[in-house]
Amino acid sequence: MRIDETTFESLVDEYQQRVDAALDRWLPPASVNPMRLHQAMRYAVLAPGKRVRPILVYSTAAALGIDLEKVDGAACAVEIIHAYSLIHDDLPAMDDDDLRRGRPTCHRKFDEATAILAGDALQALAFYIISHDPKMTSDANARLQMIENLAMFSGSRGMAGGQAIDLEAVGKRLNIAELEAMHIHKTGALIRTCIRLSALSCKGLSETDFKALDSYAKCIGLSFQVQDDILDVTGDTKTLGKTQGSDSARNKPTFPAILGLRESREKAAELHQQALQALSIFAEEADILRYISAWFVQRTH
Amino acid sequence: MRIDETTFESLVDEYQQRVDAALDRWLPPASVNPMRLHQAMRYAVLAPGKRVRPILVYSTAAALGIDLEKVDGAACAVEIIHAYSLIHDDLPAMDDDDLRRGRPTCHRKFDEATAILAGDALQALAFYIISHDPKMTSDANARLQMIENLAMFSGSRGMAGGQAIDLEAVGKRLNIAELEAMHIHKTGALIRTCIRLSALSCKGLSETDFKALDSYAKCIGLSFQVQDDILDVTGDTKTLGKTQGSDSARNKPTFPAILGLRESREKAAELHQQALQALSIFAEEADILRYISAWFVQRTH
Repeated sequence: MRIDETTFESLVDEYQQRVDAALDRWLPPASVNPMRLHQAMRYAVLAPGKRVRPILVYSTAAALGIDLEKVDGAACAVEIIHAYSLIHDDLPAMDDDDLRRGRPTCHRKFDEATAILAGDALQALAFYIISHDPKMTSDANARLQMIENLAMFSGSRGMAGGQAIDLEAVGKRLNIAELEAMHIHKTGALIRTCIRLSALSCKGLSETDFKALDSYAKCIGLSFQVQDDILDVTGDTKTLGKTQGSDSARNKPTFPAILGLRESREKAAELHQQALQALSIFAEEADILRYISAWFVQRTH
Repeated sequence: MRIDETTFESLVDEYQQRVDAALDRWLPPASVNPMRLHQAMRYAVLAPGKRVRPILVYSTAAALGIDLEKVDGAACAVEIIHAYSLIHDDLPAMDDDDLRRGRPTCHRKFDEATAILAGDALQALAFYIISHDPKMTSDANARLQMIENLAMFSGSRGMAGGQAIDLEAVGKRLNIAELEAMHIHKTGALIRTCIRLSALSCKGLSETDFKALDSYAKCIGLSFQVQDDILDVTGDTKTLGKTQGSDSARNKPTFPAILGLRESREKAAELHQQALQALSIFAEEADILRYISAWFVQRTH
């Protein structure tokens, strides 16, 4: 499929609507007890967001010719894991943020206890979906591998571990290798999971193709964060939906702080080239993934 | 197997040692980065504890003639979910407890942020174990059902939901039905999961046997909590390993507060009889489960 700005934007719209509808179906109704908890879960997950991770799941499925219905569950699971991590990261004991996606953070809208529990219950829901969704692959072993991937990449050696490294790093001078290691865990691991879950949904995918997609995923997982750090310096609060400059204000190490702005931009561009290189064994069916890599390093919010 | 106090105590010892060894293997080493997070995870899980949930997993396996090796993963998973819930329940925004299992709570020993992340990472680890453990049943569909059960019974309609109901109930006057509903979620759901995970490990178990075990599990899940409430009134801080009277001091609804102490004891005895009734289709192979039901309502800590 030929991808230009118009076709990409229409695909993004389609994927966002698709995952929002699926999330709405999987989330417990706000009218069911415990209502406050269910309201908090829905508030956090259904907040307006870019849905970057579901878009990655669907785009990889599209590139591999998989029915999108077969990856709705995976798209919901990664977005729900992402949402739970944001709730907990925003807590007073962690980043202590008041604003998220342009609205009060979950613990500000509800209360801290409810926010902690909403995050916990969301994590469980993500695993429930992959184990239960009747529309996902009927290959039970592939599903177990998806759960294994999601658990590993969101746990202490993945996303949660990255957040722990991040907390320890506040006020410290990291070198570039340490900063990269932090982000490979904190953001990269879950982005990598998105691509791997779709790849695992593809019956008969070769080991070579799987590895190529995984290399691509590693590159864009890091370039996404480099660009995030750049935007924290150059963006404005309104466009970002969170407080501009909040990372540097908190004395968190960032790519621009260590490399400078120009070299950070070069770093992002280099990762984009590596991502394209990883996809070189694919023909035009992977154009959407190529486009996404470019989008990651060119986005303004 | 004939069960008396001596054989039961020796089985409990065996099961405790067995699960502690397995937990030690599954938990990330304290020397691996992020070290503080891994130390907190180990501190919380490996704290001296009764290991009630693993004992239930192993005892059910023993009753069904399943190799204990096949349920080590399930035993670890339920204990890890239990440990994560204790870490989060103890947080200042929740129950604000300083003491747990006779030692400082996780956020007192480490810090709040680390405690939140340790809980999060432990939840992921529980699902990782069931999806990954090569020694568990090779029936991938049975494993998916285990994950589905664990996720459902620990999420917003299970354990986490029960904690949310509990928080909302502080200072309120609940009737006995509401109190039971709270505990069926908060403690009962995970206890029920223990028995269900072992039952799912048993190839060819009849629907009738599964349902009987599940009924038994529901009864002891509630009787366990009734006895917990009784001990909160009658026990002492040293034996309990947590602050005596902390529930009533916090103005939490308890069975003795609503029913009185004598009627609470009758309630526990009644649930024990119902548990025995549920097991009536089993012969002496289920004696260990019968013994556990008695132990639950007679324990002093």
